[in-house]
Amino acid sequence: MGLPIQADDVRAAAERIQPLAVRTPVLHSSAFDGEAGARVYFKCENLQTGGAFKIRGAANLILSLADISRGVIAYSSGNHAQATAIAARHVGTAATIVMPEDAPRSKMEATRSQGAAIVTYNRFTESREQIAAQIQRQTGATLVPPFDHPLIMAGQGTAALELLEEVGRLDALITPVGGGGLLSGCATIAKDLQPAIRIFGAEPAGANDTFLSLLAGQRVAVQPQTIADGLRAPQPGELTFPVLEKLVEQIALVTDDQIRTAVKFLLLHMKILVEPSGAVAAAAVLFRKLPAELRSVGVVLSGGNIDFEDLARY
Amino acid sequence: MGLPIQADDVRAAAERIQPLAVRTPVLHSSAFDGEAGARVYFKCENLQTGGAFKIRGAANLILSLADISRGVIAYSSGNHAQATAIAARHVGTAATIVMPEDAPRSKMEATRSQGAAIVTYNRFTESREQIAAQIQRQTGATLVPPFDHPLIMAGQGTAALELLEEVGRLDALITPVGGGGLLSGCATIAKDLQPAIRIFGAEPAGANDTFLSLLAGQRVAVQPQTIADGLRAPQPGELTFPVLEKLVEQIALVTDDQIRTAVKFLLLHMKILVEPSGAVAAAAVLFRKLPAELRSVGVVLSGGNIDFEDLARY
Repeated sequence: MGLPIQADDVRAAAERIQPLAVRTPVLHSSAFDGEAGARVYFKCENLQTGGAFKIRGAANLILSLADISRGVIAYSSGNHAQATAIAARHVGTAATIVMPEDAPRSKMEATRSQGAAIVTYNRFTESREQIAAQIQRQTGATLVPPFDHPLIMAGQGTAALELLEEVGRLDALITPVGGGGLLSGCATIAKDLQPAIRIFGAEPAGANDTFLSLLAGQRVAVQPQTIADGLRAPQPGELTFPVLEKLVEQIALVTDDQIRTAVKFLLLHMKILVEPSGAVAAAAVLFRKLPAELRSVGVVLSGGNIDFEDLARY
Repeated sequence: MGLPIQADDVRAAAERIQPLAVRTPVLHSSAFDGEAGARVYFKCENLQTGGAFKIRGAANLILSLADISRGVIAYSSGNHAQATAIAARHVGTAATIVMPEDAPRSKMEATRSQGAAIVTYNRFTESREQIAAQIQRQTGATLVPPFDHPLIMAGQGTAALELLEEVGRLDALITPVGGGGLLSGCATIAKDLQPAIRIFGAEPAGANDTFLSLLAGQRVAVQPQTIADGLRAPQPGELTFPVLEKLVEQIALVTDDQIRTAVKFLLLHMKILVEPSGAVAAAAVLFRKLPAELRSVGVVLSGGNIDFEDLARY
């Protein structure tokens, strides 16, 4: 079976999303290298429009729509919501966002400030997919899925395209994994540009659905329990999973405490604010979860949206 | 009287410091623009080697020394200390740093971790200049002054050189002012590249020595009281002051509360950690202390070294 996206889809996305996504900086830190035992390059998607990589996929899909007259709808715990709202406003269409009622306040406020209508739900008792489907039926809005769509996957891959264009050859690339949109897109373009590169994902130990799915050889669902609120997708996507199965060598698991340590390290030593979900791949490298022989590693820091009160408690 | 540095000194510094200083990213934020009422470009020296612009000047001086056999010595509340230690280690000479005993713990630890010897003093009862001079007599070490030296001033100016190379024409440039090393260097190169650019400095209201000195037409000393620990130089330098007098239009003053607000804004909206001293120019723009007609402003965020405990209290 052919995979749902090809490297050229990522290249096309890079062209398409230029009006909305910025080329984020790549940072390097001797202090981090010392801890990690490798040279590490950080692709800073926390510095992206909307504070996360999500604008890449959302913009790629929304800028591809032929008819935007009936608006768009998305369900998301936060970063995909904000990205969808930003891209919708850019093209001049309405956005409705279905968010869990306990989503981080900063993410909810940021989404609302982009002019989106927010519908909340209880993530323990209600299904966001069902709520979104019902609104879709009523309004005719186009669904912008959080990860399981070829245009979303290809859009997210542009982060790796930019990183590899900037730093050249790397031994390995690692990104956080929620539903697998970011990792599937990044793996696709990375393996095309550098066939020898080794691809890793990182998950919270309490949301290890992709880890288990790759072991099982099929999609496994879990009940996520982690501070990494952006990585609580219960299972990999139908479209993302075959890409991950083919291209990913291993999923590294980290504890919530290791994630907190990584957030603090990035903040105090590198002066950048990364949210827990965004720091999971950095935590995996910091705690040496990757093979020891890797000399150079690219790490996607996928987002930076965290409430100050949460941070202050660390 | 000729000024102590020329634009070509800054260009020469840019070449010289390449092995030690990184070209820091320039960031932009629609959210900040909205508050400030202008398009603002941030030169992120908090992402610089050592977490502050200070490596630019220290490296420029230390890499210019003909004889480094007897080591170097510096007095500093923190960022210049760390920068001197880093540059000394790079050239393989010993560094002694005279630091106030109440300097931020993170800055002291970072300096020690670069292999420097640290001598502490009480900043209310002892003179750091006298302590440094005594050690200098004993060891023959070369003094690396924090700001009042042509090579230090020229080195710091490379921040503005990079910023203007990257963003092109700006209506104005503003940097924090302590002893005036950063602002004098930046003003020198900025006025050479763009003669129409308007140059501003920013000081804490509780450390307004340069503001008062420019009003008085001569160097005035104050007793600084501000959370911006890097801007507590009691008066402008002998060499920096004539440059500031000639090139700077105005010094904007901000309160400690405005500085804290700017630090939080930069952290939560732009995902970067900036220390109070480093955020003073951003605070001046955020609280609209510059002329309203400015459409584009370059802001130097001069450093990011702050203790987590201090940040968590904000």
